[in-house]
Amino acid sequence: MSKFWSELAKDLVPYVPGEQPKLQGLIKLNTNENPYPPAPAVMAAITGFDKELLRIYPDPNSDVLKQALADYYGVAKNQVFVGNGSDEVLALAFMAFFKQTKPILFPDISYSFYPVYCKLFDIEYQQPALNDAFEIVLDDYDQDNGGIIFPNPNAPTGRVIGLEQLRKLLQQNTESVLIVDEAYIDFGGETAIALVDQFPNLLVVQTFSKSRSLAGLRVGFAIGSPELIEGLERVKNSFNSYPLDMLAVTAAVAALQDKTYFEQSRQKIIASRDWLDTAMRQLGFEVLPSAANFVFVSHPQHDASLLFAELRDRKLLVRYFSSARINQHLRISVGTRQECEALITALKDIFV
Amino acid sequence: MSKFWSELAKDLVPYVPGEQPKLQGLIKLNTNENPYPPAPAVMAAITGFDKELLRIYPDPNSDVLKQALADYYGVAKNQVFVGNGSDEVLALAFMAFFKQTKPILFPDISYSFYPVYCKLFDIEYQQPALNDAFEIVLDDYDQDNGGIIFPNPNAPTGRVIGLEQLRKLLQQNTESVLIVDEAYIDFGGETAIALVDQFPNLLVVQTFSKSRSLAGLRVGFAIGSPELIEGLERVKNSFNSYPLDMLAVTAAVAALQDKTYFEQSRQKIIASRDWLDTAMRQLGFEVLPSAANFVFVSHPQHDASLLFAELRDRKLLVRYFSSARINQHLRISVGTRQECEALITALKDIFV
Repeated sequence: MSKFWSELAKDLVPYVPGEQPKLQGLIKLNTNENPYPPAPAVMAAITGFDKELLRIYPDPNSDVLKQALADYYGVAKNQVFVGNGSDEVLALAFMAFFKQTKPILFPDISYSFYPVYCKLFDIEYQQPALNDAFEIVLDDYDQDNGGIIFPNPNAPTGRVIGLEQLRKLLQQNTESVLIVDEAYIDFGGETAIALVDQFPNLLVVQTFSKSRSLAGLRVGFAIGSPELIEGLERVKNSFNSYPLDMLAVTAAVAALQDKTYFEQSRQKIIASRDWLDTAMRQLGFEVLPSAANFVFVSHPQHDASLLFAELRDRKLLVRYFSSARINQHLRISVGTRQECEALITALKDIFV
Repeated sequence: MSKFWSELAKDLVPYVPGEQPKLQGLIKLNTNENPYPPAPAVMAAITGFDKELLRIYPDPNSDVLKQALADYYGVAKNQVFVGNGSDEVLALAFMAFFKQTKPILFPDISYSFYPVYCKLFDIEYQQPALNDAFEIVLDDYDQDNGGIIFPNPNAPTGRVIGLEQLRKLLQQNTESVLIVDEAYIDFGGETAIALVDQFPNLLVVQTFSKSRSLAGLRVGFAIGSPELIEGLERVKNSFNSYPLDMLAVTAAVAALQDKTYFEQSRQKIIASRDWLDTAMRQLGFEVLPSAANFVFVSHPQHDASLLFAELRDRKLLVRYFSSARINQHLRISVGTRQECEALITALKDIFV
């Protein structure tokens, strides 16, 4: 603590991201990164970029990327917002829509950045509990609120909600904004972008970090009604005019163009997830059905924090959360087939 | 306005950055960009970067860049903060230090993003007036306050304050944070980084956008006491874990290494500024003494907004501000010698 910090800064409880280890040789299954490199078109676009242009400011509106996303998802350009990773998009959305007198709602087990944003922006929240199968119970959200947010598929559970259920929630909840955080949607869910034209209070947030293999470049986006996008732009333009740099925009546009590569790497990850699911069950794990690029598992005979440590000793990094209800689970990102096999081999070794 | 916007979003008056025109063939002297490309080492670093790494998250702490800055400026790594352009660094600093019950102080003529941050974060402010020579009068800041910020050199005036004057202010002002925003310091001022070890409440903010020719990549930084840096980290880690992407970090580190190129392009700009200063005086302009990469000028016989429009007709883009006290001035970025000559030619043509 310092006397120079604002009361706000003194009170914060910052988010702790998954470790980005500096040692070599680790198999990294802890932050849900894509095991495959970005599309060849991305590599070519960065290499071919005229680096002399870096001396000037980027387009503050990133119009080229907005148009590419609009074309890709079949919406208008004024329905697209872009930001420095979906974390920044979410932070700005909390300011634009969730700074209300009524509390916002999100699940008790969910992306752990949400309560951090609430603290930063002084937003009240309530956390309806997932059921015993770790599913979001949408009926719990049918109450007066300042806004609703959840990941779909949910993190760290991987469980997904279908479009018809979302539509029903939107029909009930017309007076506040619903943010569906679709960081993992490309691995098995159906995007709610199909609903944005019907529901002006629906904002869908996605990222290039997972299914597009661009975590290193920080590009996120939101799609919704023009009025929601305008609200986001107002906040963004009061915070940072140019959050997306030229190379990030160039790479993201290229990533959208290579649909074949995207489909191939997505399908490989889904196949590896299925393989991992089966192999872990054979070792006695309980595995939640996952629509994401990770599995959320527990073992009746093995303590999760000990397993985490024993895997780390064997140079396998997975994610352990110490919070209540999930402190006997591990979240394991789906790597390449080879990495998944290495995980199973290590677990067999531990279980001997 | 939308019923879904928070009261905060409804009240905002967003910052309007200088135009980034999409038409070709304009001479762009409106956003203080560097007329020279980034150092050859930057180009090489981006081209040579292993793009497969982009699939994983960057180091959330950007330690490599912090260490490079620490080495460059002779401070410890825990005295360095980095962000997505100096605008983001400033926004986070307003939250970390300026969200106080007392009003903060900044000049009436200054970087126009400061009042925008105040609105976004609900911070009261007062604006001591520059004197008639457009100088900051430091005695005006010797009063109870929640914080002080000004650019040095100031924008859009270009006038600079010396280290001894800053030291005197810091000796008087010990209970709140002073942020010196040194976006333009490399073009003629003396950095206050030399004072951070003596004054724990001094934060110096700089950017790679101007003197390092990297506006397109969005890298800013702050140097101060470890306690101030820790305060910034707390806010940053409650907002966005990974604001700096891998290519931005790689390019910034490379830019710091090429000291010869930096010195050469800096000196060329200073020489062009001197040439421009003389040439504009010969045309009857009043030119403020500038320590930045722009000049702030007025002409007793010519209306500034008309000059702005006539220059734009001739494909020369400069910056015009309509606010009181400076609505008869133009801010003109120092381009290459050739661009400066084109400006003078156009002005002669207008004055005929």
